Amino acid sequence: MSDQMKRIVLASRPEGAPTPENFRLETGELPEPGEGEVLVRTHYMSLDPYMRGRMDDAKSYAAPVPIGGTMEAGGVGEVIASNDPSFKPGDFAFGMLGWATHGVQPAKMLRKIDPDQMPISATLGVLGMPGFTGWYGLTELGRPQKGETLVVAAATGPVGSMVGQLARLAGLRVIGIAGGSEKCKLATDTFGFDACIDHRAYEAAKDLRKAISDAAPDGVDIYFENVGGKVLEAVLPLMNPHGRIPICGMIAWYNAGGLGAGANSDTLTGPDLWRNILVKFLSVNGFIIANHWDRFGEFLKEVAPRVASGEIKYLEDVAEGLEAAPEAFIAMLEGGNTGKQVVKLV
Amino acid sequence: MSDQMKRIVLASRPEGAPTPENFRLETGELPEPGEGEVLVRTHYMSLDPYMRGRMDDAKSYAAPVPIGGTMEAGGVGEVIASNDPSFKPGDFAFGMLGWATHGVQPAKMLRKIDPDQMPISATLGVLGMPGFTGWYGLTELGRPQKGETLVVAAATGPVGSMVGQLARLAGLRVIGIAGGSEKCKLATDTFGFDACIDHRAYEAAKDLRKAISDAAPDGVDIYFENVGGKVLEAVLPLMNPHGRIPICGMIAWYNAGGLGAGANSDTLTGPDLWRNILVKFLSVNGFIIANHWDRFGEFLKEVAPRVASGEIKYLEDVAEGLEAAPEAFIAMLEGGNTGKQVVKLV
Repeated sequence: MSDQMKRIVLASRPEGAPTPENFRLETGELPEPGEGEVLVRTHYMSLDPYMRGRMDDAKSYAAPVPIGGTMEAGGVGEVIASNDPSFKPGDFAFGMLGWATHGVQPAKMLRKIDPDQMPISATLGVLGMPGFTGWYGLTELGRPQKGETLVVAAATGPVGSMVGQLARLAGLRVIGIAGGSEKCKLATDTFGFDACIDHRAYEAAKDLRKAISDAAPDGVDIYFENVGGKVLEAVLPLMNPHGRIPICGMIAWYNAGGLGAGANSDTLTGPDLWRNILVKFLSVNGFIIANHWDRFGEFLKEVAPRVASGEIKYLEDVAEGLEAAPEAFIAMLEGGNTGKQVVKLV
Repeated sequence: MSDQMKRIVLASRPEGAPTPENFRLETGELPEPGEGEVLVRTHYMSLDPYMRGRMDDAKSYAAPVPIGGTMEAGGVGEVIASNDPSFKPGDFAFGMLGWATHGVQPAKMLRKIDPDQMPISATLGVLGMPGFTGWYGLTELGRPQKGETLVVAAATGPVGSMVGQLARLAGLRVIGIAGGSEKCKLATDTFGFDACIDHRAYEAAKDLRKAISDAAPDGVDIYFENVGGKVLEAVLPLMNPHGRIPICGMIAWYNAGGLGAGANSDTLTGPDLWRNILVKFLSVNGFIIANHWDRFGEFLKEVAPRVASGEIKYLEDVAEGLEAAPEAFIAMLEGGNTGKQVVKLV
């Protein structure tokens, strides 16, 4: 075991899409855990779209990563030193360990994982934050009813695939949107969606809208919003009265800069949006899953057995080594990954 | 009693703000009520912002008024002929009687009014659709909590004044927005708002925002949206996390044409809006009160005694005679009225 720790810091704030130059690899001493703290050697770290938001110095639901600070990430790994009675070396734990080979966290900020119950990487995806995000948003804010129609983009991603599979199990017609015919095939064949539309085949929002409309002859009751941009513009006019739109993220807009940036707004205006919400009596709810951890046990209880039985499927895209993280992250923001993007460190 | 009926029809669809030429007065025979129908002589008819939407041939929650069709309106008056046992001549009734001196409606579409219980015109405002809209939107979608801050525009109008008074009674800090210092004085002195801001004193949304921010030092928890445009743009960045925005109408945008029109969107883009909903975890709900008449009894039970006791106040702006309706309507859309706009016909 090395006495050195490697981490990736934010070297500069991106203008638009991040580039490798926005990141810097640093090597330093292995940190010592303080009183009540635990040192974890990270086996897998998570890459998620929300991290793009942390790179901007804009008002958001979380503070930005400072220049020179370690990029934030959830990670799972093995405890190698502990100053708290609740963890001992050899335990496995999940926590916000950062883009780093090791992380120190207060014991109460870590969740113990049983590696015999599931592959530990699942705690970053299908049984972690992304899966929980899909479950919470669909269940609490989407309020699915049998026979309704749901649209979700990034259909093969860890949030979209959870939303679509849960909705199918609840008796809804499920239409996925994904980038490329291979992902669409995954959505229907692996995840069991009723239909999947390749948004790359449609340049204009109105053409994408026509394709969605053909696949949703009864209109759309729930649009689970996790991408923004062209898909939102395509779906909005197809919403049925009393439709629900949970909003958990907008990857298409993350690269546009902070609040006030206007990417993709050429045709979709504020008044358009607002008027649609009014005339269709839509219920639009933004949420971040961090506010709802009190429901996490309920989620695990309901979903973990369905994952174990294979009823709910999941896919991972594994990058190898910390040094691969920036490129994997950049590619993920462009839709280059298939399934939950993780980085394997051990 | 005349055997003639006068009505105002839609002569042409407006481009932007309506003009007198969009309306035409017609005179004809008094209609005969059919089986199960009732003929009412209208004493008061209501003018409301939603009627502007009915003048457009655009997709909305209700069918447009056809060219040559009678303009829609709620009205209250005296039954003068009835072919249904539930009404007899001399009864008073509320219904969708249109911009007309008389109206025929199926008995089941009329609501009997007791003129001894309240001035009959109140059934068009404080104890009718506008008051009910304010009560429902605030109670069900605003979910007010003691100590929170609420902003409502058109503060002296029948919806805004109900929302603000109910919120004050529930222990909220209430900030009104109104057009002109006289209306602002009414909001604070008559309706008891904590503060009122004259939006005419602020050309730019950012200046209006500063004024609202000064009046709302703890941020805004509920924005009751009934105007759109500059006020929305001013308030949106002031919303606190987990804020609620019930949307019941957008008078500022009604004159912009149908869906897809982009008035006031120079600076407020679709992505701005969407991103605000996400990062503040806002709950944005469009509604039209017509879908919630099942709650009307509950509203009356709660609010009517408070109106009778004077705890909840209301104002009416009365135009005289059917011929005055178009000009009163046009002026109302520009904010020229004070209090609920009605037209007195008898």
